[in-house]
Amino acid sequence: MKPKEFCPVAETANILGRKWTLLIIYNLLRGGKRFNELKASLDGISSKTLSKELSALVEEGMVHRKVSTGPPVAVEYSLTEMGRDLKELIESMRSWGSKWLDKK
Amino acid sequence: MKPKEFCPVAETANILGRKWTLLIIYNLLRGGKRFNELKASLDGISSKTLSKELSALVEEGMVHRKVSTGPPVAVEYSLTEMGRDLKELIESMRSWGSKWLDKK
Repeated sequence: MKPKEFCPVAETANILGRKWTLLIIYNLLRGGKRFNELKASLDGISSKTLSKELSALVEEGMVHRKVSTGPPVAVEYSLTEMGRDLKELIESMRSWGSKWLDKK
Repeated sequence: MKPKEFCPVAETANILGRKWTLLIIYNLLRGGKRFNELKASLDGISSKTLSKELSALVEEGMVHRKVSTGPPVAVEYSLTEMGRDLKELIESMRSWGSKWLDKK
């Protein structure tokens, strides 16, 4: 590929290569969740890492952060159209991984 | 997910998250290549990195290294069935990236 040419595969790898990014999106595909619900679903993630990952996902346009004025105040994270559009890709990852990696 | 449970999405992300890994496979989808041909196709990769990546891909079972006894001796890298099976996934990445990332 030529220098500075846009390569959608490389750019997508840059985003999806972040393991937690993908697992957060995978969890949100089943519906919006609060911070603590997400944390409980993601075994081993620290609050600091989850918070940082969610901010990046909001910034990149894949996750929507909704604050409902209470009481009680609640913050819910859900996928935008861009995030939901990763469903097929994540399903492909799931099926490739199930087929080739589980044997080890 | 429970501790130690196998998650195909997380495991696949661990492999595909390596940007060069994916680009090497993407290049080899069009057919086997020699080291220098691959290096020329991957803008910006160093010989050291390409060599390391190829060894990992051979070890993981995605790439086959074929040495033909010469003269001249030639080494060609090609995809195994496991590697070729990533085609659909990489095409999904390409189409998602083209749709959502090129606008920046």
